[in-house]
Amino acid sequence: MEARTYPEFSTHYPLLLTTIMQRPVRLYPDLPGVVYRNPSSGEYARFTWLAWYRRVCQLAHALNGLGVVPGVPDEPGDRIATLALNTHRHLELYYAVPGIGATLHPVNVRLSREHVIFTIRHAQDRIVFFDDTLLPLVESIYDQISDVVERFVYMSDRPGLPDTRIAGLIHYEDLIAGQPEAMDWPMLHEDVNATLCYTTGTTGQPKGATFTHRQLYLMTVHVMAQQAVANTPDASPADAARLGENAVLLLNTPMYHIHAWGAPFVAVYCAQKIVLHGTFTVQGFCELVEREKVTSVGIVTTIAAMLLAYPDLHKYDLSSLVRVSVGGGALPLGLKTKLEALLPSFRMSSGYGMTETAPTIVTSFIRKDLTGLDRAQTDALLVKAGLPVLGVDVEVLDDDGKPVPRDDQTVGEIVVRAPWATCAYYREPERSAELWRGGWLHTGDIARIDRHGYITIADRAKDVIRSGAEMVPTVLLENLIAMADFVVEATVVGVPDAVWGERPLALVKLRPGFEADEGDVIAFLKTHGVDTGKITKWMLPALVAMTGEIPKTSVGKYNKKQIREELDRFLAIARDVTDRHD
Amino acid sequence: MEARTYPEFSTHYPLLLTTIMQRPVRLYPDLPGVVYRNPSSGEYARFTWLAWYRRVCQLAHALNGLGVVPGVPDEPGDRIATLALNTHRHLELYYAVPGIGATLHPVNVRLSREHVIFTIRHAQDRIVFFDDTLLPLVESIYDQISDVVERFVYMSDRPGLPDTRIAGLIHYEDLIAGQPEAMDWPMLHEDVNATLCYTTGTTGQPKGATFTHRQLYLMTVHVMAQQAVANTPDASPADAARLGENAVLLLNTPMYHIHAWGAPFVAVYCAQKIVLHGTFTVQGFCELVEREKVTSVGIVTTIAAMLLAYPDLHKYDLSSLVRVSVGGGALPLGLKTKLEALLPSFRMSSGYGMTETAPTIVTSFIRKDLTGLDRAQTDALLVKAGLPVLGVDVEVLDDDGKPVPRDDQTVGEIVVRAPWATCAYYREPERSAELWRGGWLHTGDIARIDRHGYITIADRAKDVIRSGAEMVPTVLLENLIAMADFVVEATVVGVPDAVWGERPLALVKLRPGFEADEGDVIAFLKTHGVDTGKITKWMLPALVAMTGEIPKTSVGKYNKKQIREELDRFLAIARDVTDRHD
Repeated sequence: MEARTYPEFSTHYPLLLTTIMQRPVRLYPDLPGVVYRNPSSGEYARFTWLAWYRRVCQLAHALNGLGVVPGVPDEPGDRIATLALNTHRHLELYYAVPGIGATLHPVNVRLSREHVIFTIRHAQDRIVFFDDTLLPLVESIYDQISDVVERFVYMSDRPGLPDTRIAGLIHYEDLIAGQPEAMDWPMLHEDVNATLCYTTGTTGQPKGATFTHRQLYLMTVHVMAQQAVANTPDASPADAARLGENAVLLLNTPMYHIHAWGAPFVAVYCAQKIVLHGTFTVQGFCELVEREKVTSVGIVTTIAAMLLAYPDLHKYDLSSLVRVSVGGGALPLGLKTKLEALLPSFRMSSGYGMTETAPTIVTSFIRKDLTGLDRAQTDALLVKAGLPVLGVDVEVLDDDGKPVPRDDQTVGEIVVRAPWATCAYYREPERSAELWRGGWLHTGDIARIDRHGYITIADRAKDVIRSGAEMVPTVLLENLIAMADFVVEATVVGVPDAVWGERPLALVKLRPGFEADEGDVIAFLKTHGVDTGKITKWMLPALVAMTGEIPKTSVGKYNKKQIREELDRFLAIARDVTDRHD
Repeated sequence: MEARTYPEFSTHYPLLLTTIMQRPVRLYPDLPGVVYRNPSSGEYARFTWLAWYRRVCQLAHALNGLGVVPGVPDEPGDRIATLALNTHRHLELYYAVPGIGATLHPVNVRLSREHVIFTIRHAQDRIVFFDDTLLPLVESIYDQISDVVERFVYMSDRPGLPDTRIAGLIHYEDLIAGQPEAMDWPMLHEDVNATLCYTTGTTGQPKGATFTHRQLYLMTVHVMAQQAVANTPDASPADAARLGENAVLLLNTPMYHIHAWGAPFVAVYCAQKIVLHGTFTVQGFCELVEREKVTSVGIVTTIAAMLLAYPDLHKYDLSSLVRVSVGGGALPLGLKTKLEALLPSFRMSSGYGMTETAPTIVTSFIRKDLTGLDRAQTDALLVKAGLPVLGVDVEVLDDDGKPVPRDDQTVGEIVVRAPWATCAYYREPERSAELWRGGWLHTGDIARIDRHGYITIADRAKDVIRSGAEMVPTVLLENLIAMADFVVEATVVGVPDAVWGERPLALVKLRPGFEADEGDVIAFLKTHGVDTGKITKWMLPALVAMTGEIPKTSVGKYNKKQIREELDRFLAIARDVTDRHD
């Protein structure tokens, strides 16, 4: 043990996820660590850091007992899949699996059945851990994966196995019961693969982005360092007591979605109390924030919209919650101001990342030369995607590969270099080379950059609307529409057009208790967009559809692919509003 | 360029000091970056980040022009020595030299002439950069180093070269003048050596601890991450505006001393304004804090004592200064409380490290389960060395290599593993192996640990006093004596004794305006030490010497080696106080 670590390893002291996991255990063994509330039964499972860690050790021993093979650099260990929501067991898997050198593959259970099967077969997962609530899904794909998967493990708060045809099923609690509660973790090479995260596959088959221990460790410590330098607007003494290790995190982002934006690593290394809720419901969210005095959470804009529309919101004391990080798409200023008016403790800020970047690479904060701005100006900055996290190289490049001017207008593609950007898609050398062409990781996202360096996402490259010779800035339009009091959700897609190539169609969902029609949308855009110089008249949507439901992806983003596939349905209720443009 | 970096390097995206340097330049090119005040002339040199960076680039080009050879892993590049105080030029060297792959060797100019010569010859420094004020030192060692050193560079705020026999001398400003102001920095391997820091050699010849880019980068980002989680006591909203990137750092610790405790890296990565003062004087310190609105500084205890004794202290507005990190020895509680009573904005906290650990490995902060304590209890925690920085493994081991109980009493040796602990002394394989025996870096420092994990340094192993069968806790005695109102400095050393082996001798310096004698010291120790149970009667000093001057090392610590060498001088003025023990 000594010979392969020190001093030989002092220059290469390996950066491992086990170091992250052990910090709260050593520092605060007896303090509350992980809290899980079963969303069905309402029952709580509470663990001190030491109690939770002992379960991680037991799980690791059990995995070793199953003969799980660890990896070496360039040769991943066995892949272990999870089909699971946000539970303490999922967090145990997040550390035990990479801890012994295997690869954690959190399967996005909101993908189509075909894609779930594809990712498990592509990853060649040897063991599948799944939640009791996902038994129907596993049974429905069993015949397509049982030749690959050797073993299925059933995760439930209730003892006993279900009546199922899944062969050799074992209960998670039986698997770990009786295993040693301490572990001599292997001193892995830091370049051993730790996780495998598939993209949602909105274009083609999902691709599996690979991440090593080193990469995830470095993302974690850089995100923490970024928090140390970044100005948090309107910080009060009470806020300070809610930051750093005093924070209570509601781990809201699904753990099958790009490491839940890094929260399982950052919160553990910070030794923050972590609250897990299985899955998001607006009522459950409010109950847990109030009861556990949650201080910080990451949400997508659609959840913000759900909170805004929730009629019982006033019944809860959510005043402990001060840090609301919004991701998975641009944060509309209107949504931020409307929600912060209802919930004055909230400080919502934006960020940007993607599966391939692990994901955190851009985050919104107030530059020190802009701290004197008023609330409205500050908010306008905080809804931008933000500035690169320290250690990250970000450029916005035009078609010739040159950086665009910092005029907040000219758009280009965001390209990235970061110590934690994926090196390659698993078993996809050609798509990996395509991702990394020209020495940069190409995000496929279109953005502009202002003179202070703030990046604003203009569009996904594939969602860009080309009307005539011009590009319609769909995200800008969406954010403008969301400013209207009467709007709770809005998205814009291109509709094929013989004359213009494409014309913009806006889908708008009304806020409960408000009334408005298609003409009101255009009138609002003219007053608050065209007249203010934010857009030009030719960018106005040609079509507007008022709808009760806008399709979402498995991670809560507007699903433009699905909207385009079901375009006839939306065109049927859309109104041509070009007569209202003048 | 591309082929050797990306995507091949995305898992190994190299952790380099150039990344640290480029962050403030990209983020805040036009904001104040580096301020230097010449301590003799009082003239200021002010640089925006961009202006400072351009000089770094020019220096790098000039070094390349001199044929400086870059290193590869396990084979350091050319060693470049600095004999310099804290100036903007020294900070330029801190980045330009490692940036091109060479090794920076900051020579401790307070070492003896013999040791300065030894380190330059041992390092085989190819170029020596030296301050104009250090010309006499360089001339005095010239004959002993001119066969090794190829080139000497003269650093001065005044143009022109001095009249000197140093061959081929060139002025720093002439060297960099006309060089390009931009640089395509080489994408070095992160394991290339960046710095070479010699110990002060209080035992034997100085040893050169080596550090790579990766190590210094990781120390920097971990120290920043630690700041994000650690509770700062009594944080006020005004404080928040003085932290992170808003901070103004007075870079007070000599840059020839263990990377000035990491400040040149941390402050640059944070994009804090950096104030350089050449060297410490109490008046210069107060003037610069007031004028530049300094918020944070690192000092040794002797500087704290000098501030306490400074009669003009009340003439300055030092209220901007809130973070005072004390290192280089234990922080006496009495010194902290006395100084904070005079300067209410000060929040002094402790830390621990050594040359071999780069140095930051232990830092004092308030655990989240202890934030409710009152000021006195909080202060008692903050004067302890503290808790391990995240990512660092620290143990206190007894003679059998077992961790000591966490009883805050039993002492053992501090041993360390950290991603930034030196791998080896330069060209000293045997002493390196001795340092790293048993899989741990052995610090040679004796400490105890309390039930919360706070480490308290009890002694340097070589300073331990063995009286009879017992060890006298010298640091505890020193801190107790410093509690007395009438004391400004105190240290305790062992005096050989035929009966006891050793007996403790206390050297005490009176605070200006106070009167006390040897008997008062013992009376104070009995009341505040023996009667309170902090020490037992047999630990009381057998001898006390009231003295106007206690010898210090080159970095401001009590120089116990020198005291022992000049023991007769102190014994001549010492009084045997054993009759006062009862």
